Amino acid sequence: MSSSVLSTKRAAHVGIHPWKLIENQWNAERHIESESLFALGNGRMGQRANHEETFTGSTLPGSYIAGVYYPDKTKVGWWKNGYPEYFAKVLNSVNWIAVEVKINGQELDLNTCAVESFYRELNMETGVLTRRFTARLADGTGVTVEATRFLSMVRDELGAVRYSVQTDRVAQVILLSKLDFNVTNHDANWEETFWTNFDTGGRGNETWVVSETKKTEFRVAAAHCSVLNGAPVGTHESQEVSAIAWSASGWAFTVQAHIPAVLTKYVGVVSSFNAPREAVVERAAERAREAAAVGFEDLLAEHVQAWRTKWDTADLVIEGDDAAQQGIRFNIFHLLQTFTGVDERLNIGPKGFTGEKYGGSTYWDTEAYCLPFYLASADPKVARNLLVYRYKHLDKAIENAAKLGFTHGAALYPMVTMNGEECHNEWEITFEEIHRNGAIAYGIYTYERYTLDRAYLAEYGLEVLVGIARFWAQRVNWSEHRKAYVMLGVTGPNEYENNVNNNYYTNFMAAWCLEYAAYAADYVRTQHPSDYARIVAKTQFRAEEELAHWADVRARMYYPYWEEKQLFLQQDGFLDKDLVPVADLDPAQRPINQKWSWDRILRSPYIKQADTLQGMFFFEDRTDRALLRRHFDFYEPFTVHESSLSPSVHTVLASRLGYAEQAYAFYLRTARLDLDDYNHEVREGLHVTAMGGAWMSVVHGFGGMRLVGEQLTFEPALPAVWTRLAFHLVWRGATLHVELTPGNLSVSVVDGPDTEFSVGNQTFIAQKGTPVRASV
Amino acid sequence: MSSSVLSTKRAAHVGIHPWKLIENQWNAERHIESESLFALGNGRMGQRANHEETFTGSTLPGSYIAGVYYPDKTKVGWWKNGYPEYFAKVLNSVNWIAVEVKINGQELDLNTCAVESFYRELNMETGVLTRRFTARLADGTGVTVEATRFLSMVRDELGAVRYSVQTDRVAQVILLSKLDFNVTNHDANWEETFWTNFDTGGRGNETWVVSETKKTEFRVAAAHCSVLNGAPVGTHESQEVSAIAWSASGWAFTVQAHIPAVLTKYVGVVSSFNAPREAVVERAAERAREAAAVGFEDLLAEHVQAWRTKWDTADLVIEGDDAAQQGIRFNIFHLLQTFTGVDERLNIGPKGFTGEKYGGSTYWDTEAYCLPFYLASADPKVARNLLVYRYKHLDKAIENAAKLGFTHGAALYPMVTMNGEECHNEWEITFEEIHRNGAIAYGIYTYERYTLDRAYLAEYGLEVLVGIARFWAQRVNWSEHRKAYVMLGVTGPNEYENNVNNNYYTNFMAAWCLEYAAYAADYVRTQHPSDYARIVAKTQFRAEEELAHWADVRARMYYPYWEEKQLFLQQDGFLDKDLVPVADLDPAQRPINQKWSWDRILRSPYIKQADTLQGMFFFEDRTDRALLRRHFDFYEPFTVHESSLSPSVHTVLASRLGYAEQAYAFYLRTARLDLDDYNHEVREGLHVTAMGGAWMSVVHGFGGMRLVGEQLTFEPALPAVWTRLAFHLVWRGATLHVELTPGNLSVSVVDGPDTEFSVGNQTFIAQKGTPVRASV
Repeated sequence: MSSSVLSTKRAAHVGIHPWKLIENQWNAERHIESESLFALGNGRMGQRANHEETFTGSTLPGSYIAGVYYPDKTKVGWWKNGYPEYFAKVLNSVNWIAVEVKINGQELDLNTCAVESFYRELNMETGVLTRRFTARLADGTGVTVEATRFLSMVRDELGAVRYSVQTDRVAQVILLSKLDFNVTNHDANWEETFWTNFDTGGRGNETWVVSETKKTEFRVAAAHCSVLNGAPVGTHESQEVSAIAWSASGWAFTVQAHIPAVLTKYVGVVSSFNAPREAVVERAAERAREAAAVGFEDLLAEHVQAWRTKWDTADLVIEGDDAAQQGIRFNIFHLLQTFTGVDERLNIGPKGFTGEKYGGSTYWDTEAYCLPFYLASADPKVARNLLVYRYKHLDKAIENAAKLGFTHGAALYPMVTMNGEECHNEWEITFEEIHRNGAIAYGIYTYERYTLDRAYLAEYGLEVLVGIARFWAQRVNWSEHRKAYVMLGVTGPNEYENNVNNNYYTNFMAAWCLEYAAYAADYVRTQHPSDYARIVAKTQFRAEEELAHWADVRARMYYPYWEEKQLFLQQDGFLDKDLVPVADLDPAQRPINQKWSWDRILRSPYIKQADTLQGMFFFEDRTDRALLRRHFDFYEPFTVHESSLSPSVHTVLASRLGYAEQAYAFYLRTARLDLDDYNHEVREGLHVTAMGGAWMSVVHGFGGMRLVGEQLTFEPALPAVWTRLAFHLVWRGATLHVELTPGNLSVSVVDGPDTEFSVGNQTFIAQKGTPVRASV
Repeated sequence: MSSSVLSTKRAAHVGIHPWKLIENQWNAERHIESESLFALGNGRMGQRANHEETFTGSTLPGSYIAGVYYPDKTKVGWWKNGYPEYFAKVLNSVNWIAVEVKINGQELDLNTCAVESFYRELNMETGVLTRRFTARLADGTGVTVEATRFLSMVRDELGAVRYSVQTDRVAQVILLSKLDFNVTNHDANWEETFWTNFDTGGRGNETWVVSETKKTEFRVAAAHCSVLNGAPVGTHESQEVSAIAWSASGWAFTVQAHIPAVLTKYVGVVSSFNAPREAVVERAAERAREAAAVGFEDLLAEHVQAWRTKWDTADLVIEGDDAAQQGIRFNIFHLLQTFTGVDERLNIGPKGFTGEKYGGSTYWDTEAYCLPFYLASADPKVARNLLVYRYKHLDKAIENAAKLGFTHGAALYPMVTMNGEECHNEWEITFEEIHRNGAIAYGIYTYERYTLDRAYLAEYGLEVLVGIARFWAQRVNWSEHRKAYVMLGVTGPNEYENNVNNNYYTNFMAAWCLEYAAYAADYVRTQHPSDYARIVAKTQFRAEEELAHWADVRARMYYPYWEEKQLFLQQDGFLDKDLVPVADLDPAQRPINQKWSWDRILRSPYIKQADTLQGMFFFEDRTDRALLRRHFDFYEPFTVHESSLSPSVHTVLASRLGYAEQAYAFYLRTARLDLDDYNHEVREGLHVTAMGGAWMSVVHGFGGMRLVGEQLTFEPALPAVWTRLAFHLVWRGATLHVELTPGNLSVSVVDGPDTEFSVGNQTFIAQKGTPVRASV
């Protein structure tokens, strides 16, 4: 494998199983990692695998509601003009899973009692988390708990918990089925709380709690119906003290030895992001009540069925390599949990619903890494909603550019955002990592080329592209010295360099955006003239003048180039660096982001993630293989892959170049990044957006599925150990089934029209029922 | 004048007077500015011109004790490896001037009563602040106060206040002569308090208060003897509640109309920086007691005499231009107040004793801008102590470099420091603005060349130079591409560019340091062999190998150069910029540091302060005039002079080039920067280090006093409006008196040996008594 891939993975503690994560013993030290790995979500909300019962050990409580954020006051050393006032934080919200257990007066807490057995399982096929343990309390009582939890994929404002307790002797038990809004964010900048309690109460066997975020005034209600042993009303206790911000239903009773007491908790969680503010509590209570009426088993059944439907198109089957199989399913599972595509106001946060870190919800990761997965695995409207999200933020992107001195409708999309406003605040990222604008245009291109839904350009796409093109046309400046347009002071995808001049990737993407925007303008003008007239009026598009300027910038854009080696240079100063390959670095110096001071990293040649290669990855079908090989061979040896987004791009490119061993090493690093905790940070949450890259590694890389122009092609490169790779593709109205075994490709149409594809120079037509086979 | 100098000065509100600042009316809005302008200091402590009596209006309380600081927890957005943990804050300390006045139960407070007349005067000749006002209280009583204050230049732990109160009718008066340690820092990063009260008490007519800084555990005591109408003991009231951290002597009495009650307050302020911790309170009390025994008039007389002695050598007389005269005296006054040179552990903070801003005490400003003033105006040991300060920090500079990955005794001096440790925390400054190391070597060179005290190299200088040279030798890297040594990722003096490659100034200074260190090593080896042996052993200096490497780096250092125009370029990418001169900018866009986002500033060609020109300024005698003119003519038009350190360098260079009008415009901007509040920030304190630049503007620029090699030369260029310029120079054991009138120079020796100097190609010898005259 490439010596530049630093292998620092930890032994996975969740077993190898094609469909499951399994822990067979209680490991207090790794519990906080498990909380991330076993997290559940349903697109509307998410929940880390925190324990239901009280736990005083190391934990990161995490309950997240999509779209609900807090604009935390930024924290900077020296204020710089243009900094945004706030950094949007993903909010830890109501703890709705809580079940407090007291036995003979002793709190059940895995941190304080003796754990005699422990089993935790995440079934990715069904989206169900289960846990079983036996613990011994101080008074000698043995307690066995079985807990089952899911966030309904059918009813996205519903969570359900079944919690069974039995003891090995007669005991006094108190159960409190609780909703607790006394929560904080681990990463609050100023150690402030972000919530104000609005209401707390109870009625019959329901209780509720409602809080509001400060500043943003999102209101979130949780309400539950809890049922003990099938009998709806126990001893009802409700606390309505608003200072305390919790409520609970409680039961006190005597249990006989080995007779389980089973609590079933149906929880509705509703936010004003998704409902009128006044209605959230009533709607949450309705969700809980409806669920209680349906019953746990039936709710679970419909949930499992919904997952089955998702897996039907989204699954990737790998045979011969269970670790790889588990890895890719783990990635797909979290992608499906994070974004379901039903709401165009939502997007894919870098940690999804598994942690707070990085805040915000949307980075360029979405367009660059996630979009292909959703396009191939779900109805096209899912991917389309990711694009519409950006369209809806166009006005704010224009405002954002105006703050930085750009005019006339130039749009700069934020580096990190929740609602369209920039909320990142390091100047070298916020102000200079402007290549993100290119990725947003590329997202439109990806969608349009994959789906052929060109009308999207008329409806939404062109406006975005005009804003982006205007930005680039203003952002370059003419260098009298070079007689070319240059782009100064940028940060490329490789954040280990910043404030550089003429980053190849950025210049390349800028020029491409100008080309694509011109194409889109031409298309809409000729094919959708009334849309065109509307857009021209709205954007005050001076077509002739602007298109001419765009063409000029494109034509005279400067690209740093090393004639001698026929290489595009990452930026103007790259060749001045001390070009020692990563392989020659003392391993004790790595990872450099932990071992080196920032200035040393910046002046080193080491690359955090694909940069020049990122452009070649985006436009593989325009990139000659020899050119790609030269650049891969030059840049990869300087790449430290210290971004989770790096290995996947390299898998795909290495596969194309026939670097099988490297490709496979990169793949494991991307697909099992979190399972094997390569970066020692899984406790903070999972790398959800990088998971889209893992999917691309398999389908584009090993599966060799690529678009050449608009043609579906396959150029597979199965890892030696894989005996079979099979997956579905949602493709222009059809669902295809693709199977790969060593040397053989088979494509069939599961549903939809006949489909053309090519392998090498050969063209095939796949039809319903009969697989087309090709040697590969 | 140069169109690049933006004239945004405000009307001075302190009058034009050759020796004084005068306010003739109460101006509540500008009081906080006056607090800075009228501030007093004596090298050991300083005090803003806060009112003695209670003032509830806008104020920045400021009482500062040299060397006493607090390591405030840094505040950053995203932590970067290598960041220092703290930022040293100049501490607001005990309010020892406080006199609370109650008349008929009403608090005297200029913010709440009607001010009928007000006069405030800072006499710079004597170092005395006086204030007179008449105010009318709510009950109609008219109150007239006269307050006189000084910080003794003879007894540097003593402050004295005379405070006289009279009323226009019989009235009940309560006077509280107070010491108050309930203080905060305006710029605390986390709104924490920095002091813990240690003791508070009273005895007889003395009271005291003692507090300690958190973390650094500096103990500071203030003790006072207060005397009313010459009678030492009034009604004594002392509060010893440590939570309150104040104590006072108080009097309650009846005054008759128009009969003043006169309070005299003698205050000792002693810190553990300057005395054993256990002894501070007793020593403070002794200082107060001794002073009371001497009496106010005699203390004042000795203080005035001490100032007279200082002015005897330090004064600059300008005739024909009172604004310029006032400006330069104001600058000299504050330089003399800030650093007296008696303690090598002290240095010159950018705000001196006039404000908190910027924290820390020492920047490269000291060596680059302040040293020449002290060399020419005081005993050489004053300047020498500024050098020893750095020597004593050498170990920490080596540690600092080690943290950034440098080895083998390489030293990187901090950008900002209090005790030798770096405490600035923006990476582009802290890690990359490494040219400061060059200024520190240049300080040694300046001293050594001016004084010919070459033995300093053997005693202290060489060790510092070896550490600095080692840093540069490691900091460059060989560029195979350029076949030269390059220096990547630096920030030059122009902080409006950063993370640039091959900043000319930095490369130039690095090469010069290597040369100078080699010279020093050679000198010490041959002239002070035993010192050399000691230093070689201590630094493990591998002379042959290291000197050879230094010579190689020097010889093959890369300098960006524009062949066509024969110009050194500020950095590799400068010519790619959009080279629109400042004069063509819309004035509404200026100052750019307020109007533009940071990225836009960075990619613009606009220069905050001299950068390439700074090197030519440092080495004027090595810089050909034609070369200087080319560079001045190229760079100045891009310079926005938004640093207080910019105009002075340009005055000196413009004078040399015969650009008289520009030189004068720059001069006013530097010498009256604070008086005319060009930067609208004088409320935060004065630009004390820039004041050294003002002095250079006059003596080096207009006076034309320069060293050519080691030869004293004069090439005057008096502004047209000046009829006479006269000053003294402390010069190699002599004190010279220099007089300039249009066309004439006269130099005489006031004291000391005959002195050679040159004007143009002519050499003269000045002798005691008889001025030598030359036409100029």
